[in-house]
Amino acid sequence: MENVKKYQRQYHMPPEKCTKWAQKEYVEKAPSWCSVDLRDGNQALVIPMSLEQKIEFFKLLVKIGFKEIEVGFPAASETEYTFLRTLIEQDLIPEDVTIQVLTQAREHIIRKTFEAVKGAPKAIIHVYNSTSVAQREQVFKKSKEEIIRIAVEGAQLLKELAEETEGNFQFEYSPESFTGTEPEYALEVCNAVLDVWKPTAENKCIINLPVTVQLSMPHVYASQIEYMSTHMKYREHVILSQHPHNDRGCGVADAEMGLLAGADRVEGTLFGNGERTGNVDIVTLAMNMYSQGVDPGLDFSDMPGICEVYEKCTGMKVDERSPYSGALVFAAFSGSHQDAIAKGMHWREEKDPGHWTVPYLPIDPTDVGRNYDADVIRINSQSGKGGVGYILETQYGLNLPAKMREAMGYAAKAVSDHSHKELHPEEIFSLFKKTFENVVEPYRVDEVHFRQKDGGFVAQVTSSFNGKTTTTEAAGNGRLNAVSNALKKAYELKFNLVTYQEHALEQSSSSKAIAYVGIQKPDGSLSWGAGVNSDIIHASVDALVTAINNR
Amino acid sequence: MENVKKYQRQYHMPPEKCTKWAQKEYVEKAPSWCSVDLRDGNQALVIPMSLEQKIEFFKLLVKIGFKEIEVGFPAASETEYTFLRTLIEQDLIPEDVTIQVLTQAREHIIRKTFEAVKGAPKAIIHVYNSTSVAQREQVFKKSKEEIIRIAVEGAQLLKELAEETEGNFQFEYSPESFTGTEPEYALEVCNAVLDVWKPTAENKCIINLPVTVQLSMPHVYASQIEYMSTHMKYREHVILSQHPHNDRGCGVADAEMGLLAGADRVEGTLFGNGERTGNVDIVTLAMNMYSQGVDPGLDFSDMPGICEVYEKCTGMKVDERSPYSGALVFAAFSGSHQDAIAKGMHWREEKDPGHWTVPYLPIDPTDVGRNYDADVIRINSQSGKGGVGYILETQYGLNLPAKMREAMGYAAKAVSDHSHKELHPEEIFSLFKKTFENVVEPYRVDEVHFRQKDGGFVAQVTSSFNGKTTTTEAAGNGRLNAVSNALKKAYELKFNLVTYQEHALEQSSSSKAIAYVGIQKPDGSLSWGAGVNSDIIHASVDALVTAINNR
Repeated sequence: MENVKKYQRQYHMPPEKCTKWAQKEYVEKAPSWCSVDLRDGNQALVIPMSLEQKIEFFKLLVKIGFKEIEVGFPAASETEYTFLRTLIEQDLIPEDVTIQVLTQAREHIIRKTFEAVKGAPKAIIHVYNSTSVAQREQVFKKSKEEIIRIAVEGAQLLKELAEETEGNFQFEYSPESFTGTEPEYALEVCNAVLDVWKPTAENKCIINLPVTVQLSMPHVYASQIEYMSTHMKYREHVILSQHPHNDRGCGVADAEMGLLAGADRVEGTLFGNGERTGNVDIVTLAMNMYSQGVDPGLDFSDMPGICEVYEKCTGMKVDERSPYSGALVFAAFSGSHQDAIAKGMHWREEKDPGHWTVPYLPIDPTDVGRNYDADVIRINSQSGKGGVGYILETQYGLNLPAKMREAMGYAAKAVSDHSHKELHPEEIFSLFKKTFENVVEPYRVDEVHFRQKDGGFVAQVTSSFNGKTTTTEAAGNGRLNAVSNALKKAYELKFNLVTYQEHALEQSSSSKAIAYVGIQKPDGSLSWGAGVNSDIIHASVDALVTAINNR
Repeated sequence: MENVKKYQRQYHMPPEKCTKWAQKEYVEKAPSWCSVDLRDGNQALVIPMSLEQKIEFFKLLVKIGFKEIEVGFPAASETEYTFLRTLIEQDLIPEDVTIQVLTQAREHIIRKTFEAVKGAPKAIIHVYNSTSVAQREQVFKKSKEEIIRIAVEGAQLLKELAEETEGNFQFEYSPESFTGTEPEYALEVCNAVLDVWKPTAENKCIINLPVTVQLSMPHVYASQIEYMSTHMKYREHVILSQHPHNDRGCGVADAEMGLLAGADRVEGTLFGNGERTGNVDIVTLAMNMYSQGVDPGLDFSDMPGICEVYEKCTGMKVDERSPYSGALVFAAFSGSHQDAIAKGMHWREEKDPGHWTVPYLPIDPTDVGRNYDADVIRINSQSGKGGVGYILETQYGLNLPAKMREAMGYAAKAVSDHSHKELHPEEIFSLFKKTFENVVEPYRVDEVHFRQKDGGFVAQVTSSFNGKTTTTEAAGNGRLNAVSNALKKAYELKFNLVTYQEHALEQSSSSKAIAYVGIQKPDGSLSWGAGVNSDIIHASVDALVTAINNR
């Protein structure tokens, strides 16, 4: 790719080394969350949400537990303005929720914003102007001093209008395109705004440092945040906020490292909706904390329901591999993964039900409203004995002998590989029955009579082969052994009875039992059968005959 | 979410501080890339690829420039085995490409793998066993020593069989579930394997440290990599590889930080296909380097074509917000973004065509086969003057006066907001024509005659209003001014002619020109019109009349 020469790094390192954050290991405490779905998310949709959709989405955000919700850029379109007025006039904002509105640092837009927000019980007025080298030079064609003046004048107007307007207002300032701005200069702009607002313990303000476009690796952003956090005036009265986008696929890493570096707050969206590659995905951020035992303060226990409302309102799809929420993120098709998950689930039940350490599943799918049966162990040509055995056990109560699971695994794999499709549990079960249960061709046992002899049994077996009936008698140390010997005698069969297991079928209405029989053929390989009957002797004979027929 | 109590961190920190990597700023050199699309990607599909699809996908990977391609787990299914044999027997592997095959460290699987790979010109045999605390305890129920023995015996068998089998073999070992393994123990296992293989400068081997499940933040993984890289035996003859998954949404960050920490190689997939949340997305990794001027050695210049083959073969969709590849990642709907992009594009053309610094576009979309017209500036109710003006200019050659762009922006926004849809360029153009071009109701000019007088002009204007015709005469310092005065006189109109611009219409076949006229109404607001005609005088009069009709 020849064109690579036209690119160079466009970010700026802080003037001093800022890597203290790297000493920390993980995020120990949830930040304040602010959803920007209805603004940044909405403005990036091919078709922005309608009034009704915005109201439904707002209610979803409240239900999840967001306490700060950016509801729009009310000066930007009629729908956004009407939405804000509807929220206020229909009293849809819960007491513990603060709405946030965005405005450029331009007089007429700020004025229109205050008009729009009139009567809101509490509101964050979020003012911004762009500060990056590229924007100063190419878009605004203004000097650093002129850009500071825009920010300061905006901040002053906010202060004035907040005093004139009814309501409780908190202020937020963003040096937009922060990631393309020299950190020293961004600091200068923010401190100039703070000098206007003079935040106090009772009246904190928010400084938001957006990753408007991701231009660097996440640890560079973290060092920028650490620099800003260390040198910001009124720091103890400032809520330091982040707003990462995802152009380099590192929105989550930016937000998490920024938190280690001193940030207190995150603006993001559900499933990472937002401009271009999207905002940081708050679902992933919150669930990442959750998976390490840190309560995120947001409730994603009904993830399928949340996905549904999201998809309906935005017209977007939750990607199948989206962490914690995608259709495939708990799925294991591969045999070794299935085997490990099945063993891990058993181990957990027996050894440590209080903790979650199951291999290949970073969280318990049921914690987000998913289920083991439909979402985890799924069978295709990549699958093996573990998965198939697990499905037969958990969904049909069949506890196959280990080696028989292997045979059943190969049977399922062959069907899936040739038919080129996923096999659903009912198909697995019916494949099991067809292949291993009560197979009576070519050999069939019609009648068996036992009598005890020398502490063992003698079986008189009437059987048929291709329609021709024979009766033979043989002894054995057990009933099944005797039947096996009688059949060997009748047809000169060569095999050893090597495995016999049985268990009651709990799911059966008529208290039936299932027997599994494995026989070893002269070449050493195994052949399997199962029999189901309310009489366990009958079941075991059926299993034996099936194993013989399956040789 | 009450269940949070069942989680705790499951990763292990290295026994010493490893943060030297954090001193580096960015990835200066492309790593070796290994695609695992046909193995890890394939095994995570609901329907794994067919033989034909695998061959098509393999050819795509070769075309992109991958030199190492993991083609499957040949012992796992018939399709994978057949695919490998087809590649070899039909001579589909280019000379500079090495195929890689995966095998568990189990004797019969290793043997089958060597059988499958027979005759390949070059192959990497990738052997693994699982080493994490959870897998040792729950799945294998083996001690640390026993797990090492599995790895060492596997390594020995590889060595033996490689000597017996025709072909050139390189070895790779993965301590699977590395991220859940104590780093000291992972090191011990890897060093034990290396002691078997004894790599040399001529015969390097690969040690791959997979993020089988993402359990920590990326900087923790980086410190684990740094620890392994620092203490690994035969380090100069070992290619240190990574294989990040994406459970915490940090696959890209893991890979990039791992490279800073000493890794030489990355295993990943196109668009992050793979188990659960997927593998690291190599497209994003490569393009992240590209966007900072580092040649990734992979060619994504035909991204739409690559997406097409990918979607066809895997049955997956490239997410609309997937970095560098998604349908929406270059789209700007918002007015301020559009304005900045339009200005940035102009600035670049004039000031610095050799570099790319356009705001809101981390790379030039044309570098990946996308285009400005269809993909970047898109118009809906969030859009403004910048975007609409840009489309009219770039696609229809109309260079509207700045203030007229604003009026056109509002007109487009209103239509999109009310009709609740995106407006395509042809709709914008037709809206422009309907609203601003040659509007002749209620006022119309039927005839104009000029004569010169006192260095100015006198216009005799025959016009009509609601069907009633009038002729008036007035003077002006220019022709248009005279016409304007005549119309004012005829109908007692009150306005000032404040803007007049014209330009040739390059796209017109008959060398027409367009004139734009802005008039200011008594309340100070502006009204706009445009006229198109091969006679520029005629065009300007039409523009004036339209502006009057639009008051």
